[in-house]
Amino acid sequence: MLKGRNLIEPMDLTLEELDEIFDLADEIIKDPRKFIHACDGYLLTTLFYEPSTRTRFSFEAAMNRLGGSVIGFSEPNASSVAKGESIADTIRTVACYADIAVMRHPKEGAPQVAAQYSDIPVVNAGDGGHQHPTQTLTDLLTIRTLKGRLNNLTIGCCGDLKFGRTVHSLIKALSRYENNKFVLISPEELEIPEYIKKEVLKKKNIEFKQVRTMEEAMKEIDILYMTRVQRERFFNEEDYIKLKDTYILDNEKMNLAKEDMIVLHPLPRVNEIAYEVDSDNRAVYFKQAKYGMYVRMALILKLLGIY
Amino acid sequence: MLKGRNLIEPMDLTLEELDEIFDLADEIIKDPRKFIHACDGYLLTTLFYEPSTRTRFSFEAAMNRLGGSVIGFSEPNASSVAKGESIADTIRTVACYADIAVMRHPKEGAPQVAAQYSDIPVVNAGDGGHQHPTQTLTDLLTIRTLKGRLNNLTIGCCGDLKFGRTVHSLIKALSRYENNKFVLISPEELEIPEYIKKEVLKKKNIEFKQVRTMEEAMKEIDILYMTRVQRERFFNEEDYIKLKDTYILDNEKMNLAKEDMIVLHPLPRVNEIAYEVDSDNRAVYFKQAKYGMYVRMALILKLLGIY
Amino acid sequence: MLKGRNLIEPMDLTLEELDEIFDLADEIIKDPRKFIHACDGYLLTTLFYEPSTRTRFSFEAAMNRLGGSVIGFSEPNASSVAKGESIADTIRTVACYADIAVMRHPKEGAPQVAAQYSDIPVVNAGDGGHQHPTQTLTDLLTIRTLKGRLNNLTIGCCGDLKFGRTVHSLIKALSRYENNKFVLISPEELEIPEYIKKEVLKKKNIEFKQVRTMEEAMKEIDILYMTRVQRERFFNEEDYIKLKDTYILDNEKMNLAKEDMIVLHPLPRVNEIAYEVDSDNRAVYFKQAKYGMYVRMALILKLLGIY
Repeated sequence: MLKGRNLIEPMDLTLEELDEIFDLADEIIKDPRKFIHACDGYLLTTLFYEPSTRTRFSFEAAMNRLGGSVIGFSEPNASSVAKGESIADTIRTVACYADIAVMRHPKEGAPQVAAQYSDIPVVNAGDGGHQHPTQTLTDLLTIRTLKGRLNNLTIGCCGDLKFGRTVHSLIKALSRYENNKFVLISPEELEIPEYIKKEVLKKKNIEFKQVRTMEEAMKEIDILYMTRVQRERFFNEEDYIKLKDTYILDNEKMNLAKEDMIVLHPLPRVNEIAYEVDSDNRAVYFKQAKYGMYVRMALILKLLGIY
Repeated sequence: MLKGRNLIEPMDLTLEELDEIFDLADEIIKDPRKFIHACDGYLLTTLFYEPSTRTRFSFEAAMNRLGGSVIGFSEPNASSVAKGESIADTIRTVACYADIAVMRHPKEGAPQVAAQYSDIPVVNAGDGGHQHPTQTLTDLLTIRTLKGRLNNLTIGCCGDLKFGRTVHSLIKALSRYENNKFVLISPEELEIPEYIKKEVLKKKNIEFKQVRTMEEAMKEIDILYMTRVQRERFFNEEDYIKLKDTYILDNEKMNLAKEDMIVLHPLPRVNEIAYEVDSDNRAVYFKQAKYGMYVRMALILKLLGIY
Repeated sequence: MLKGRNLIEPMDLTLEELDEIFDLADEIIKDPRKFIHACDGYLLTTLFYEPSTRTRFSFEAAMNRLGGSVIGFSEPNASSVAKGESIADTIRTVACYADIAVMRHPKEGAPQVAAQYSDIPVVNAGDGGHQHPTQTLTDLLTIRTLKGRLNNLTIGCCGDLKFGRTVHSLIKALSRYENNKFVLISPEELEIPEYIKKEVLKKKNIEFKQVRTMEEAMKEIDILYMTRVQRERFFNEEDYIKLKDTYILDNEKMNLAKEDMIVLHPLPRVNEIAYEVDSDNRAVYFKQAKYGMYVRMALILKLLGIY
């Protein structure tokens, strides 16, 4: 029963609950127009304490395509917080107006605090470098739909594996399904954190290896998850410039991969995927954005208890 | 007949018109989903020349929950006014697109000017320190619903009674009903202005007293209206700091009050109500925010002539 | 067949396609409420890389009045472009969420680039000093509706004819209809560019004359198209001040004109039309804004293939 629940961390949902959401997303994908009045009269609020156009668009599109409406702010400047209001008061006030809240916040834990004070469902749309559970839902739905399964997969993760929260969440999420393997492709400076290796992978006896080049990984992987090397995670410009161009996917590398391999990317990309790759059928990152909207539609319907 | 009317000052409405709005609000509260298509195809525009997230949210939520849509700006920077456009031209242009306009403006009288040039209803959502009539409607509906009447009440007003426009409007509004009394709780520096005492209270022979402590008032009041001590109203920081913490409501003070007393606050609060009070059933300030949405729904329906 | 098409330049549409749009606009004007659910479940995105409240309002109102929803940004700061995303990637992502995109961009050609990468229709809502095709549609629908025809007209264009893109587009558009004549009223410094005279007017043997005063033109024209003298087009303040007050329309000049002459203006005006003119029946610039909404409603329905 998902009605009234919050979604703060990807692990808040059991595998059965994930299936429930994905099954509904499948239904929506098959016939989106069946759902255009499902949320008539319902209201979603987007509380974005830091800007994130893409995530905001995805939630707004999801709610609008269900017939629901959206109110919100996309940066905190114009909001009441300037008058010294606490998150507890803000959420209790918007809960008077809206039926479900989506919060993005630069501080880790802020959505959790909001959820404690809210009597409407709160969805975490990213809190600092911490969690972004609907991105993980997006990734899982994309894989489930395009590969037909969430188990028995070899997943290559490439780029910034140290700071990239989407990769951490994806590894944790896919570790819950049987017989998945990971190939972790990164420079030494951006390796996956020790706690993920120890507390997730080793603890569950999950096969993984760490490599330095994409070429070593391309042949065996079913999924290549590319990530952006974010300038804002670096302390000095020199390190950023040295590393950002190291792990760029191009057609030459794509030629090494399986015919049914798929390339995912949370977007926006900077230059880690060459434009020439876009026309390759295996490049599914724009489709992935679309699945992101569909999975949010399903999530909204479930949390509101409409489906 | 409220169709096509403007709402610039709380006193623009007769007691009969207020009842008409409140009666409709009651109907909406009883069955909100009955109204989710009432404004299908109608458009409200929010012209916010200064930010006020809460007020904007309340109007947007009201219109959206009626099936209507909203266009607008929430600060003037991004608007055509930067190109030197007058309020007269702006309102005449948006009147081509929208069916009803809500205006917030830092200058007193701006919504009145807009109304003169507009052929759609204009609602004042706050003009400087002047008027904010839908806040008054909110306060009245909250009292009417929770106390069952708008007369025979003893109302305590606490905090900044000098600059707080919501209190001024509330006193004027409640002075129109029979046998209401006021207890005005404030430091000397923030006393109610002389003209309210003279032109409203004394003129109508309304009983009132002025006290310096909350303790003196708590026992006898039916309603405690708390207000924020707004930093922006002070000329120097020292005065602000000295006074802002003086009139804080906490559980100790609540213990002195009647069992059916209710606490209102226009929100956002800073620290004038301790968090511990929130769990007291008599603390109704979040409910009040919800009544604010309902009364705006009723107002929109009346001004558009739909109900 | 307009379904799925882009609108980048006014000349992208044949005269037959224009008629198709205007005929639908006529239907909407006759009975707007017939269309309030036409776009239920459809989504328009406004990608405004520079602010333009009026244009944004007009598109948002159009989509909302058709029952559709809008997502978007009104300035680029809060958008993913800050993270270094290309227009190609932005449009491909929003095309996952929305059914039609409206783009405003300070750089000429940006909407054309977007259209190349988009699989949803892209409408240019202004690219630098270049094109603004829906303004031209607005002007044409206004003339067609109020004069009953788009041919056999004498059109006076007044003000900044050098930099004013709306005038250039209007001249090109009206040059496609039979027997139209132009009177070009401007100071020498702001004369119509040579290429318009040569490649449009002379090439098509269209009668035109250039005059320095409004008085010379008023008697013979059927339409007076006034334009704003935009400060931002000038390199020095002195030139701006000298010229901006030169071509001001007032009642005295209106007295010289035909009884069925109409005055158009793309708005916002600064002071090029005296306020006293507003009450003259021939001043139709606010009506024009309304036709702008209706023509955009028709355009959206056509590009989405709904009508």
